[in-house]
Amino acid sequence: MKLPLSFALLASAASALAQTSAPMKPFGLVIHGGAGVIERKAMSPELDAEYRATLQRALDAGYAVLEKNGPALDAVIAAVTVMEDSPLFNAGKGAVLNADGFCEMDAAIMNGATLQAGAIAGVQHIKNPLHLARDVMEKSKHVFLIGDGAEKFAESLGYEHTPREYFQTDFRRQQLERAKQLEAKKDNGTASVPLGPASPGGLRDEHFKREQKYGTVGCAALDQHGDLAAGTSTGGMTNKKFGRVGDVPVIGAGTYANNATCAVSSTGWGEFFIRSVVAHDISAQMEYQGKDLRAAAAATLAKVAKLGGDGGVIGIDARGNVMTDFNSEGMYRAYHIAGQPPVVAIYGDEPR
Amino acid sequence: MKLPLSFALLASAASALAQTSAPMKPFGLVIHGGAGVIERKAMSPELDAEYRATLQRALDAGYAVLEKNGPALDAVIAAVTVMEDSPLFNAGKGAVLNADGFCEMDAAIMNGATLQAGAIAGVQHIKNPLHLARDVMEKSKHVFLIGDGAEKFAESLGYEHTPREYFQTDFRRQQLERAKQLEAKKDNGTASVPLGPASPGGLRDEHFKREQKYGTVGCAALDQHGDLAAGTSTGGMTNKKFGRVGDVPVIGAGTYANNATCAVSSTGWGEFFIRSVVAHDISAQMEYQGKDLRAAAAATLAKVAKLGGDGGVIGIDARGNVMTDFNSEGMYRAYHIAGQPPVVAIYGDEPR
Repeated sequence: MKLPLSFALLASAASALAQTSAPMKPFGLVIHGGAGVIERKAMSPELDAEYRATLQRALDAGYAVLEKNGPALDAVIAAVTVMEDSPLFNAGKGAVLNADGFCEMDAAIMNGATLQAGAIAGVQHIKNPLHLARDVMEKSKHVFLIGDGAEKFAESLGYEHTPREYFQTDFRRQQLERAKQLEAKKDNGTASVPLGPASPGGLRDEHFKREQKYGTVGCAALDQHGDLAAGTSTGGMTNKKFGRVGDVPVIGAGTYANNATCAVSSTGWGEFFIRSVVAHDISAQMEYQGKDLRAAAAATLAKVAKLGGDGGVIGIDARGNVMTDFNSEGMYRAYHIAGQPPVVAIYGDEPR
Repeated sequence: MKLPLSFALLASAASALAQTSAPMKPFGLVIHGGAGVIERKAMSPELDAEYRATLQRALDAGYAVLEKNGPALDAVIAAVTVMEDSPLFNAGKGAVLNADGFCEMDAAIMNGATLQAGAIAGVQHIKNPLHLARDVMEKSKHVFLIGDGAEKFAESLGYEHTPREYFQTDFRRQQLERAKQLEAKKDNGTASVPLGPASPGGLRDEHFKREQKYGTVGCAALDQHGDLAAGTSTGGMTNKKFGRVGDVPVIGAGTYANNATCAVSSTGWGEFFIRSVVAHDISAQMEYQGKDLRAAAAATLAKVAKLGGDGGVIGIDARGNVMTDFNSEGMYRAYHIAGQPPVVAIYGDEPR
């Protein structure tokens, strides 16, 4: 069919307009794959490329949802699922091992439009912990389920029972071994010890330095409806004992979203992030002081540092301003805001 | 020995001064024993008197610590221990029963001077859960331990293994039975259901109406050094399933303390209190907006109500201003500020 000239001109003009003007409504997302001692000199080109490709894949999965006018919550799930399924990150497959040699995982999600939230802690057989956190939010009357109980809830919804072995990788087994060696030297008898600086051993230093105590994945997204959402998923701390839980499933610490302010996901030394109520503290400065997202995050991270903790945060606000900040050496991170090129970064000397 | 006249005069003058002037430094504490449908008309005089006497005993135990110049943390522990040991409250002995018929308890404590915190969730054999939360804070490198792991930590410290039966009371067994009957009528198949309004049955209405879903105990204290502390302990929600955890062990939601602002303990419908990050939200308004404690608490409770939740909060600030507020019918509460008479109250028409 041949188009009339007038229609062709109109279509051409509309296309030109779409290319030159900014999108009607801002949207986009930001992700992290953990903060910690991540140094350029300790990373092989191959590993560097692998991390960047996986971050890009996670970013694209989330962005595709938003581009098709999908909800921020779906974008968060899509992005985090890629990282949970990748053995590179400390969440889902490839989560760190506890002192007994298996994975205990935590996750949380929050809907900024409704302030609904869901969180789980200490699950061992859930392939994608963030999916379960969302189901806690949307299919139960509760917010926070732990341990066997959370698994029973998953079972009641027809979740597949994923064997412990699925999550375990050789790298994490070696990391646990090394952690136990270090612990034997300095154990005070009461608690698991975060991995200290790597020393020469059977594994390459770059491996030891990867996510010593921090690795966690998360996403914050803004959709075209103006709704915000954030989600975080983690295996916690290598060699953890006593059912230790960090900031990830603690709503307000590791995860918070509120359409009135921002959506935030944290990754850091969980104990310090709980004590600083990091994610909500950032939101509260925006709400009560009118600070912008970056200034609020910087102030909160300064407080964490003052207590002796470190790590990073990512966030996005209702106008599409994005923030990635950390006081550790590096943080696996990426963001894509509509109308702007995507950014993928790892080290401290790259854009944040 | 006979005192010289000059010394006797001096002593007499000092004594007069002590009696007439306000204490050098303000100190005091505030406690709660749960908020909910607590109505004067549904309470027998005997039960009313029993509650008041136990609240007074808890208040006195905490005040005695502060009066002797002891730390706020010790006062919090002293007051909460009395309520954990009493079968009247939903914490320690007399905690509500879960769907399987036993108690799973949560607790948290925070030191406003150092922002250190400790929390436990889902313990079954710890006589005084708040003691263990304090030990997590002070004797581990962690903040939050859950389930069997938390119990193993207690064992490593020499805690006695308290049998499940110790915690269970006939009243809670009957309450669980009634909850299951109600649930059978309206279960949606996915979650435990909070007890609805009581209907005539085998138990007196006053019993059904006691702490339907809220009962929790807590304390916030200011010591003579100017240090603040808060602690909260609970059995959670009757008939709970799936390892459900409420706001109590979530630092920032059920418990928060910061010398720069206030110490707060919450008691309410935990899901809504988590989503509103209640305790930290009150602190944040003081820190970032300069609001006073009462105004901040009122604003936060209004947000909780807007989401559909209810309950109460107690708090004290660094100048000894005290707050007890709730949007439920009543809240078991008491406070004692140095230089002022102690106050014990239950119903909505009494002082708050």
